[in-house]
Order: sequence, then C-alpha cells, then structure tokens
Amino acid sequence: SPWSRDLADVLKNLFVSVSSRRVPKVAKGARDFMPQEMIVREKAFKIITNVFKRHGAVTIETPVFEPKETLTGKYGEDTKLIYDLADQGGEMLALRYDLTVPFARFLATNSVGNIKRYHISRVYRRDQPVMTKGRFREFYQCDYDIAGVYDTMIPDSEVLKVLSEILSELPIGPFQVKINHRKLLDSIFQLCGVPEEKIRPISSAVDKLDKEPWDVVRNEMVVEKGLPGEVADKIEPLVMQKGKPLELLQNVLDSKQFAESPTALAALEEMRTLFTYLDHMGVLDNFSFDFSLARGLDYYTGVIYEAVLLNPEVGVGSIAAGGRYDNLVGMFSGKNTPCVGVSIGIERVFAIMQREAEKKTAKLRASETEVLVVALPTGKDQPPSIMQRMTVAQKLWDLNVRAEYLYEANPSIKKQLNYANEQGIPNVVLFGEDELARGVVQWKWMNEGSGKAADGNKQQNQTEVKLDELSGQI
Amino acid sequence: SPWSRDLADVLKNLFVSVSSRRVPKVAKGARDFMPQEMIVREKAFKIITNVFKRHGAVTIETPVFEPKETLTGKYGEDTKLIYDLADQGGEMLALRYDLTVPFARFLATNSVGNIKRYHISRVYRRDQPVMTKGRFREFYQCDYDIAGVYDTMIPDSEVLKVLSEILSELPIGPFQVKINHRKLLDSIFQLCGVPEEKIRPISSAVDKLDKEPWDVVRNEMVVEKGLPGEVADKIEPLVMQKGKPLELLQNVLDSKQFAESPTALAALEEMRTLFTYLDHMGVLDNFSFDFSLARGLDYYTGVIYEAVLLNPEVGVGSIAAGGRYDNLVGMFSGKNTPCVGVSIGIERVFAIMQREAEKKTAKLRASETEVLVVALPTGKDQPPSIMQRMTVAQKLWDLNVRAEYLYEANPSIKKQLNYANEQGIPNVVLFGEDELARGVVQWKWMNEGSGKAADGNKQQNQTEVKLDELSGQI
Repeated sequence: SPWSRDLADVLKNLFVSVSSRRVPKVAKGARDFMPQEMIVREKAFKIITNVFKRHGAVTIETPVFEPKETLTGKYGEDTKLIYDLADQGGEMLALRYDLTVPFARFLATNSVGNIKRYHISRVYRRDQPVMTKGRFREFYQCDYDIAGVYDTMIPDSEVLKVLSEILSELPIGPFQVKINHRKLLDSIFQLCGVPEEKIRPISSAVDKLDKEPWDVVRNEMVVEKGLPGEVADKIEPLVMQKGKPLELLQNVLDSKQFAESPTALAALEEMRTLFTYLDHMGVLDNFSFDFSLARGLDYYTGVIYEAVLLNPEVGVGSIAAGGRYDNLVGMFSGKNTPCVGVSIGIERVFAIMQREAEKKTAKLRASETEVLVVALPTGKDQPPSIMQRMTVAQKLWDLNVRAEYLYEANPSIKKQLNYANEQGIPNVVLFGEDELARGVVQWKWMNEGSGKAADGNKQQNQTEVKLDELSGQI
Repeated sequence: SPWSRDLADVLKNLFVSVSSRRVPKVAKGARDFMPQEMIVREKAFKIITNVFKRHGAVTIETPVFEPKETLTGKYGEDTKLIYDLADQGGEMLALRYDLTVPFARFLATNSVGNIKRYHISRVYRRDQPVMTKGRFREFYQCDYDIAGVYDTMIPDSEVLKVLSEILSELPIGPFQVKINHRKLLDSIFQLCGVPEEKIRPISSAVDKLDKEPWDVVRNEMVVEKGLPGEVADKIEPLVMQKGKPLELLQNVLDSKQFAESPTALAALEEMRTLFTYLDHMGVLDNFSFDFSLARGLDYYTGVIYEAVLLNPEVGVGSIAAGGRYDNLVGMFSGKNTPCVGVSIGIERVFAIMQREAEKKTAKLRASETEVLVVALPTGKDQPPSIMQRMTVAQKLWDLNVRAEYLYEANPSIKKQLNYANEQGIPNVVLFGEDELARGVVQWKWMNEGSGKAADGNKQQNQTEVKLDELSGQI
C-alpha cells in the first residue's frame, strides 16, 4: 500500500541520516593517541634514543610495506598474521611484521656490510588484539642491531650493555635479563637423544618453563610431541639449571656434563667471554644464565636473551628480547652478514609510564607553553586587544619562547588568567594601555612565591620588565 | 631425450639458485633511508617541531590505516589513488591518504572540540611515482591545524605566522605565500555568470594560472568545460589581480568591482582583518594577495594559501598549502567544528637540504660519536686490550658521553686512529699499560690545534687526564 511505502521511505531516510552521522571508529587493534599520551611516548623515546646515540648508533628508515615475498618464509606459522595490501594491479605488498626482517633486507638491498643502527617505528600484526594486556595490531618496536664481521662477543656484549642502560634509565623498576646460547640448548637436546626433527618443537616446549611447571612441559613433550619419557627425564636436570652467570658456568664445566659435546663446550667458552665483557662494563649483575631460555624464532644462531621486569605490580612477562642471527641476511643476498640485536617492547614501557603519570596529583600538561600573553580589554572606540597581544607574542616567539594568547579579540582579564591556570602555564605577561605607553609589561609567575625577585615587595610573584629586555627574564 | 632433460634440469636449478638470491627491492615509489639522509630529516623535523611547540601546539598520532569508509568521498577523483588493504576476513581498511581527514575523524571519534595540534607522519598515494621530482608513494607530511570556535581570523593568522617562521628557519631560501579567500573567488564566478555546477571545474582551471598563460586556461574553460567565451572574458581581469595585500585590497574596494556581492565584501573584510593581524606579527611582507589562487580540494570554506620558493635553482612549485575547512568534521560527527591548517611538503625540503649537505666538502657524519676509546695492543701473555677499552668506555657512557671502540679484541694503534679519522670522530682517549697503572689516559683532539690547552707545549693536541676526572674534559 502507498501508506506503508511512505513509511518505509521515511524509515529508510531516517536510517541513512543516522548512519551517515555514526561516529567513525579506528580500525580494530589500532589506537588514536591523545596529546598527554604522546608526551609520555616522547619522553620514553628520548631516553632510549639517547642511549643508542651514546653508543655511536645511527638510524635508518624502511618502508611500512615490503614486497610480500620479502616477508614470506620468515615467521613460521605467524605468517598468517601478516597484513596484505589489496592487489590493485601492481605489486603484491604486505605491511611489515617486525623491524628485523626489513633490516636484513635493507642490508642486502643496499649492500651494507656493517652498521650499528637503531630503528624506532611501527609494525603490524593481524593478531587477536587484547588491549588490556597491551597486545595491539599496530604498535611500536624499538630495535638496536649490530651487523658486521667482528671479534667474538664484542658486539653481543655492547647490545646487552645498551639494553641494560635503557632498562635502568626508563622509570619501569627493576629488571633481569635471562641469557642462554642457542647452540648450548641444541647440544643438550642432542646429548639427551632428541631426534633432529624434534629439536625445534621440544625447544619451544622448554621455552614455556618460565610460565609452566616441569610436569606440564614434560607432558607436552611426551604426549603432544611424542618424545620418549626417558629422554624428557634426561632433559629436566640440564635445562632446569639457572643462576649467576660466571658461577653457574664454572659449576657446569666442573660437572663435566658437556664433556662429550664440543659444540656445547665452544658455546660455553663464548658465554665465558661474554660474561667477562659484561663484567668489565659493570652490568653483569643484571643477568641470569638460564638453560631453559629458548626463544621462539628459528633464525637465532648464537646467544639469546630476554629481559623481564621484577616488580609484580607492573605485571610479569618479557619487556625486551633478542639474540644473534648470522644467516638471515644470506636469505636475501646469498652472502651472510652476521648480526646481533635486541628489540624493546616499548608499548609495555608506555603503559607503565602512563599509569605512573596518571597517579600523580599534578595534571599532566600536553603543551609546553611557557608564557600566556594577557592584555586588559580595550574600550569600545579602540582596536581590540588582540593586536597588542600579537605584537608582544611576536617578541617572545622571536626569542624562541613558547607563548600563546587567547583566540578572542578582546577577552576579559579573568578569562585569560583562568586559561593560564587551567592549562598550567607557568608565566603570564600582562599589560594595559599604560604599560604599553611606557614600553613595559608585568611579568607574573602563576605559582605563588615562585618569583625570581625577593626584594620584600608584597607582589613577589610579579615584576615589571621593559619590552626590549624580555630576553633577560627568560 | 634424456640429454635435453638433464640440460633443462641444470638450467632450472641454476635459475632457482640465481633467482632465490636475487637481491630484494623496495616497493615501487617507496624508499630506504640511509643514516646520512636521516640526519638531514631529523634536523628539518627539529626546526619545524620547535616552531610548532613555540606556538603551544601539542601532537597526536592516528593509525596508519583507517576503515575504508572514513576515506571514501573525501578526495574526489583522487580516491582511486588510495591503497586498500586486502580483505582478510575482517574490516575493509585503507592506508591514510593525508593527515587532514584522519585529523577530522580523530576530532569526531574522540569528541575533541578544540585543539591546536601538529602531526608529522607518513601518508600513502598509489600515484605514478616520479622520484626525480620528489613524487613518491610513501612520504612524510607535516601538518599544523587549529580546531575550535574562535574569533574571526585569529587562528588563521597564527597558522600563517607559524608557516612563515618555519619557511624562514628552514635553510631553503626565500619564499612567498600566495593567499586568497574561497568565497571571494566563488563570488567572482557568480558575478561573471558562471553556472553553479561549473564553479568547481572553472575554479580548478583558474588554479592553473600559476603555470599556464591566460589563453591556455581560457581555452580549457571554453572548449573543454563549455563556458561561454564572454563569461571567460569577464573573469580574466578579476582573477588576474595580485599584489601587496593591503594595497590590493584597498584598490579593489575603491574600484567597487564587488559592490554587488555582499559575500565578496564580507570575504574582503575578513582578509583586511587577517592582513592587519599578519602585519602586527611582522610577517605580512611574505604574502601576495592572489585572486587566481583556487586550491583543488573541495572542502575549503574560507582563506586559502600556498607557499612557493623563489629561488629558481631549487625548482618552482608549492612547498606548503592549506586553508580553512569548517565542514569536514561535520561529515563524521554531524556537528561542525571549524578548522584551519597548513600542510608542509617536507619531502621537497629534505631534497633541498640533502643537496646542500652533499655540496659541502666535509663529509656528512651519520653518527654523533664524540670519543673513540683507543688502547695500545697488549702482549701475547696478557688479556686483549678490549677489556681495558670496555672499562674506560663505561666511564664515558656513565658521563653520557657518546663513545665507541673498535669491535676487535686487540687491534693496532694505527687501525684505531684510522677509524677515528675516517669516521670524523673528534676526540680520542688513548692509553697503554703505563697510563692505566697511573690511573690516567691521554686525551687527543683529532683536529690539529683544536686542543683546549695552550701551554706552549709542542703536543698541543693532546693532554693527560686522570680517569676519575674525565668529566672535566667534556
């Protein structure tokens, strides 16, 4: 009937009108960052970048997308988490999954044989996001890697020194770095009789010993992965070893448990060199030699490590991880370039710092404005005060002072001072016709008693300054 | 035949072996950035960010991808240049095309009614790349926008003050900012009798007057776009007007050419206010009032502008552009938030700065290392010098000094000093067993005669410093 057709049209139009005004969302697992959050991020980046530069590192940038084939075959079963771009009649592209594979590709593409570089940028994983646990689809990584042929353990030790300095300087509480050697762990499996093809699966079971008790891990090995029970039982006493690096190393050598594995003995010698270096750099106390540390990625070939925070309030779990990977560049160039590096899980760092910042009673300022330029409102027959404020602000900007004024032609003094208070702007430059005629302004400190002058004057929070001498006030 | 099968296999294996080692490329129109390029980029970002912060701006970040529908219907025919992500069973996403639409979406999503924000980040356009002309598929934009309901032209003038400061402080030579008002231009078209539906196409023809002579533009209007010749001829004298802002404004008012258009007169009054403000901020000399400036994007509603470089050596063309867009946020939230902003084409800035940096005879250093730690090689029965160098480097790192050593266990002095020279590291800390036993090192300035001491000693480029007093040396 015509009536119901009309009603349908009305409803349809209403629906279109409402839905066109539906407030848009961000993509799943991605986030907008508000100015207050950016302040915390920039603070963390500054601390980290300073450490990187202190160690002579340079920075590079690579595209956010790579040809799909560059990423293929590098991440095992996690390849399914890669974001592909649509085929729009050109190349097959995908968003980068981490910064390590693009770094190896960068070395191959540009024939760079040695470099010490840092890279702070975003990566993309089509994972199930768990925002409360800090797992996102778009997130920052913060990588430091040394590529090149150098003497044993010298670059490795500097990567770990850099990691120690960063974790000490970030306000995230105490930490520990677990450390192991991929070849030592593989030797354990060989000595115990794990078949070659089961080494990586058994290794990934052992890696869970930081969260699960031995019984659970043994069950995974025997029931799920078909390892004979007696082999698992041989593994237990070996991988459960952990402790102070040099002490544990000596105990293990004294016990002769690796006497029959030249590979293990060589790895232990490398660890001794590494620990000695870390000792000379004053950071060995942060490390725990942990025979159960395995790290998931296939490409590691030497020392491996993982940093954890020790304060239970901030939650357990890894905050940084890395290791030596000598064969990844060769997958691109056919010529290996040895690399060692670390990746810092900066999103957790942000979360901890953000929580601390929010605890503080003082409001976190997003802007860094130092001065609000405030003028008495002018009379009806005069130009509005905005032009006076622009003239004075320009003098401050010329002196590289961070200054603002209200975006209103002729606001009241009260409104202007309220803004300074609300925004936490520490200084106000105040004037009326009288001051401008005399070429001066009143400099007012917004926090009572924070004035520089202490001449016994009642108005200690205010002083008169000549317009041409503003620079002396800053 | 078996012979040819063998040959085929050989060839196939050879092909697989060669192609698997084919050096991987970056995606079309995207680039890797080498450390020396990053130094130039960071320098430019620092100059720009300092100006933004000087004006009290805060920063935000938005995701690199947005739901496709957020970008749809915002870019006219350029919508075809948007990079879509593949449909992998979730949302339909696309890479951001600019920072303006995500900013408007940010304001709507987060119910932000007023903010002065800058945003420096990468955007994506599936355009035909012209690397030599600086047109890429992945490139940085550098945006500054003020959102909120404020008095006329006050935020607009600050955006233009910020733009003037940035273009003055960047080492890119002289510039000029062309400025116009969208409503003034539209009034011209109405006064001349351009039909409503032809206003935007005719406007985009007029926008080409900076590159093409009037005859070519007239031809586009009349032949391509079907405008009657006599209408085009009426447009010519009006849009060809340009000159010093306040002078041209007065001439135009005196000539009464807009006497019949209240809209044009209102726009001219806004321009007078704007020019007065720019004059009070000391930057009006940079501006040219140009009635032919049109800007392509549909969303502008008020003042529009475009900055060009005046040095023909760096090439002509726009280096920055922007304007007022009061209706874009409303497309998302249903409630308009007035905005005005500018976007700086930072890739051209980089290219100019990079060319200047490469002209200089001195090699551009990528790392900022201040000190190389150098030790005499130790004897065969002693530990290698690396441990001594680590101990001394640690003292420097503790003092926040940027220090390095060679990644070699026991290198020769010559090799170490060569490295300092090659890398342009300005200082060397040098020692042997003798110095360490006495708790001192030799501090050596690598540039002859740059030493701080001037005691008449022949070795003016070297001085002995106690290990515990290194801080005094820096």
